[in-house]
Amino acid sequence: MESSFKVIASGSVTSPQGFLAGAVKANIKSREKLDLAILCSEKPCVAAGVFTTNAIKAAPVTLSQKHLKARKAQAVVINSGCANACTGDSGMADAVEMTRSVAEKLGLSTEDVLVASTGVIGVPLPVERIRAGISQIALTRDGGHELARAMMTTDTFPKETAISVESGLGSFTIGGVAKGAGMIHPNMATMLCFLTTDATVDARFLQSALQKAVDVSFNMITVDGDTSPSDTVVILANGLAKTETINEGNGELFQKALDKVCLYLAKCVARDGEGATKLIEVNVDGALDEAQARLAARIVASSPLVKAAIHGNDPNWGRVVAALGRSGAKVNERKLDVYLNDFCVMKQGSPVPFDKQEVSTSLAGKEVLMKLCLNLGEGKAVAWGCDLSEEYVTINSDYTS
Amino acid sequence: MESSFKVIASGSVTSPQGFLAGAVKANIKSREKLDLAILCSEKPCVAAGVFTTNAIKAAPVTLSQKHLKARKAQAVVINSGCANACTGDSGMADAVEMTRSVAEKLGLSTEDVLVASTGVIGVPLPVERIRAGISQIALTRDGGHELARAMMTTDTFPKETAISVESGLGSFTIGGVAKGAGMIHPNMATMLCFLTTDATVDARFLQSALQKAVDVSFNMITVDGDTSPSDTVVILANGLAKTETINEGNGELFQKALDKVCLYLAKCVARDGEGATKLIEVNVDGALDEAQARLAARIVASSPLVKAAIHGNDPNWGRVVAALGRSGAKVNERKLDVYLNDFCVMKQGSPVPFDKQEVSTSLAGKEVLMKLCLNLGEGKAVAWGCDLSEEYVTINSDYTS
Repeated sequence: MESSFKVIASGSVTSPQGFLAGAVKANIKSREKLDLAILCSEKPCVAAGVFTTNAIKAAPVTLSQKHLKARKAQAVVINSGCANACTGDSGMADAVEMTRSVAEKLGLSTEDVLVASTGVIGVPLPVERIRAGISQIALTRDGGHELARAMMTTDTFPKETAISVESGLGSFTIGGVAKGAGMIHPNMATMLCFLTTDATVDARFLQSALQKAVDVSFNMITVDGDTSPSDTVVILANGLAKTETINEGNGELFQKALDKVCLYLAKCVARDGEGATKLIEVNVDGALDEAQARLAARIVASSPLVKAAIHGNDPNWGRVVAALGRSGAKVNERKLDVYLNDFCVMKQGSPVPFDKQEVSTSLAGKEVLMKLCLNLGEGKAVAWGCDLSEEYVTINSDYTS
Repeated sequence: MESSFKVIASGSVTSPQGFLAGAVKANIKSREKLDLAILCSEKPCVAAGVFTTNAIKAAPVTLSQKHLKARKAQAVVINSGCANACTGDSGMADAVEMTRSVAEKLGLSTEDVLVASTGVIGVPLPVERIRAGISQIALTRDGGHELARAMMTTDTFPKETAISVESGLGSFTIGGVAKGAGMIHPNMATMLCFLTTDATVDARFLQSALQKAVDVSFNMITVDGDTSPSDTVVILANGLAKTETINEGNGELFQKALDKVCLYLAKCVARDGEGATKLIEVNVDGALDEAQARLAARIVASSPLVKAAIHGNDPNWGRVVAALGRSGAKVNERKLDVYLNDFCVMKQGSPVPFDKQEVSTSLAGKEVLMKLCLNLGEGKAVAWGCDLSEEYVTINSDYTS
């Protein structure tokens, strides 16, 4: 049988067999929106997670990391509106209470429940309202869409997808949901992502596959250079599709499918950066090695001056070169070629004359592509970001008050 | 004689004996503003410089570095409106031509003239207009103020100062002028600074004293995290005050005075960040060492989310802690104390209740002080930045077009 991927129309994190979700308005920040959700599986799952690299970790991150040591889980409880970060001992007690309430509701042990919180830092969770909310959540096979909305903070649209895969190991589905918007930067951000699959997956392979997928997707997006204490990407695999066990030896196709789901969700997060009006893709090739290419692509994609210029459709490519130059990647100006969309603006270190109006018009599209050819080696990488608008500042200057 | 510092009223880079300056409107970008200036000394000077760490260096930087190898200089020519960066071989020829024109005008050798250009990257210098402008510049003892204005790009006010010093080695004066505003970040930025003194200074000591002064001042300010290919800080010492020769052994007071001048100018640059409405000072103490303290202070001062919150007088201190957490400095949340102005908002990792309105009112001042006590070691540092306003984006989204 030939292998193939198919994107499922209106796919969600509950598209794979045996996953259920639901959400309620628990009045964590306001009465008007969904802000508390549960994702669970009918059967116990093999599980893996990748978490924030920030030295300050939110209580839910610490607790989920602890529960994931056993490489298994069956449910996740998620709230928006309060990050339960920098909340001391009582914050940890609140996170434990969230997992305990869900375990009780679902008849699981507390250790099988993971938890994630996103929102304002340094404010205690309204744990009574959360407990009441958990008891009211109705779990359904179609609940993924509600969950996607309940996770949103300053996001302007829900981010979810699912793909079905036909392979020699059997057919299976991978679903995913993410939230992002601000505090988004390489090495994770206020970024939550939950992935599900009904494939049967070896637990160690699941962890390494997840890390690889995160490295080429969520770790290559940037909104504002700020990272969050709450970043979480978790995958649950329940085996209900009865595939052969997918492992290091036969997992290439699973890895490709997982990369695809993560990349789609990561680009949604970049595109929906706070105040953003367009997606910026930065392609770097010819770096000395992949690490330098990644560094260069991420620094260019995160430069406020580059982002502001692109917001104004301004072909001010000098800022791109200046950001590249400070990235730490080895650059030889005399070998450098730079493209904005399809227009070459710098060739071997010298400016190439171009029609400013024409390039500006092309930059006015919803997606802008920058290509930097360093011509020094074989290192390649792609990073994604968004433009910087006045709206970003407006959103972020009155978030708590 | 007791040593003392005195700030000179209306001091400028030409306050020390024997320095002259002048500027003209050379129509480099528009006919409306001064954009070309010369600073020179009546006598040859011992000279030192600190330049951009960006891998992409503007032609004037490369040329000035070459001329400074001899540790002497007698004049500097400066233009705004065009950075002469990323301009290939012809850019270098244009930089050489600027020094040649000035050398001819002043009867110096080309090697005694330094050059600095600031403005748009990737655009050729209008070298004919610059040559014509150089011939028209009238040099006067009071010309420092004109020079300060001619260096400005998006700066909203000229940045200049001078202090007179009484010391056991004799009396002398140090003057200085700077420009900045955007592309300002630790490790230098689109930042030009020229310093002058009539003290007699040993050439090697002058270089090390300048590097030290830059490390505690210009390298600790940040506006937007972007650094520029054009960053230049140069000092000229002409010896006309006939002090004893100041060197490593007796230079402590000179170092203090130079630090003071650089710190004043650096804070002016931070305060005048593009679109800024206030100065932010970030004090870090108790870090494991000074390097970690510097890292932490600079990352917090450059966080877009911190800067946007301060713009809105929003005491959202979680963002301060999140930025600290990603700085790379060792942090133990349980030991961390955080202050916004005089208000303690986090003590040993737990939130401290505060009156939000009261703190917000205090943040509405022109200067905001953050203090982060890591309580791990003896490392201390101070960084300066500014708030992030909608105006920053507006300024930077239509700079060239």
